[in-house]
Amino acid sequence: MMIHNRDQAVFEAGIKLGALYHQWVGTPVSRRSAASIESAIEQAVILQPCVEEITVRLDRNLMTENIFGYSELSGLMFNAEIVTRVGFTYCRARLAPHDGYPLMQIMECHEIPSLSHH
Amino acid sequence: MMIHNRDQAVFEAGIKLGALYHQWVGTPVSRRSAASIESAIEQAVILQPCVEEITVRLDRNLMTENIFGYSELSGLMFNAEIVTRVGFTYCRARLAPHDGYPLMQIMECHEIPSLSHH
Amino acid sequence: MMIHNRDQAVFEAGIKLGALYHQWVGTPVSRRSAASIESAIEQAVILQPCVEEITVRLDRNLMTENIFGYSELSGLMFNAEIVTRVGFTYCRARLAPHDGYPLMQIMECHEIPSLSHH
Amino acid sequence: MMIHNRDQAVFEAGIKLGALYHQWVGTPVSRRSAASIESAIEQAVILQPCVEEITVRLDRNLMTENIFGYSELSGLMFNAEIVTRVGFTYCRARLAPHDGYPLMQIMECHEIPSLSHH
Repeated sequence: MMIHNRDQAVFEAGIKLGALYHQWVGTPVSRRSAASIESAIEQAVILQPCVEEITVRLDRNLMTENIFGYSELSGLMFNAEIVTRVGFTYCRARLAPHDGYPLMQIMECHEIPSLSHH
Repeated sequence: MMIHNRDQAVFEAGIKLGALYHQWVGTPVSRRSAASIESAIEQAVILQPCVEEITVRLDRNLMTENIFGYSELSGLMFNAEIVTRVGFTYCRARLAPHDGYPLMQIMECHEIPSLSHH
Repeated sequence: MMIHNRDQAVFEAGIKLGALYHQWVGTPVSRRSAASIESAIEQAVILQPCVEEITVRLDRNLMTENIFGYSELSGLMFNAEIVTRVGFTYCRARLAPHDGYPLMQIMECHEIPSLSHH
Repeated sequence: MMIHNRDQAVFEAGIKLGALYHQWVGTPVSRRSAASIESAIEQAVILQPCVEEITVRLDRNLMTENIFGYSELSGLMFNAEIVTRVGFTYCRARLAPHDGYPLMQIMECHEIPSLSHH
């Protein structure tokens, strides 16, 4: 059975979200350092194949301080949105809290019609 | 635009492969301990939503010893195959070396025809 | 200034505890799979230089199920104890919850007197 | 047996080096994005208890491009130096390649004499 561009775009979006979650969960973080982590994640993800756009925003409200005055990056802090592209098909997906779970979801897939060739 | 079961099954397969890669890369490993890592990865992945099957085999031939007599889990050591299911649609995907790169690939998607209702 | 065996043993204990924490935090886990993670961690840590003993016990009581029926390895689940040795000096250290923080602590350092040579 | 400030400072240095290694190994990286990773690591480590200074430099020469044009953060890329302090005792340690192994080493421990009180 054929694998279509749409399958591939969706697959790549899944890979990147799964990867970023497990690469960065556990990192020491605070409200002041959060921007540096966001930037590092974005710059790491954009390097990978098929990624068109990536934005990562970490929820500062969840960064409650432990007894040493910092916090640890947890799954529920992530708000990430990614756009992948394979051929003319795009997939937009995100990672965001949903019912207390850091949910990864496909938001939309769409195909840009190829130019006609007369 | 609608998200189909097939999209979802493919997405979940991507998530799991991306996650396992970045969770375990860097782990100290040797030929003798490799089986314990394989088992831990399989038992962790099977817990996650939509996973029907997961097998992980780490390439012992790449486990060359450093000056302290062990190795470190690297991307190219992975041979993993996963089957995800959403509704009646299955996706089989894998992570394996390809041209010196630890490639994640969709192997097939297929749908089990629903039972007819006469 | 000289670095003594005691310094080295203490340093190695710190390295291993810091490493295991950040390698495994975030792993999907459940009460049924916990033993496989414990075993994989122990078998990975024992490979590393200067490690004499390592035991890891993950707190099942903290493994509350998310909406998909599993949990995620968090810092407070760890109860780990390690013994490192450099020359005739041993260091015993542990990682365990303390006031809601996953604290790493040196428990004791002791030196085995060398055999006398008459 | 007593645990001294020196032991504690050395232990904390070990923890931080072990932690940063296993937190970040495996991250996608390129020469252009390396600075963002360096900054994120430094800003994460400085949050942790007893850390006075941390500098991280990633070896761009080892960032050879894979078939998709990027690289992956590996242990040998790290050149990190940390200073920890407990009471009036300082420990300086580093992570750097040595004989093809990413070696963590104590560089020096020293104590600032307390002010005399006549």
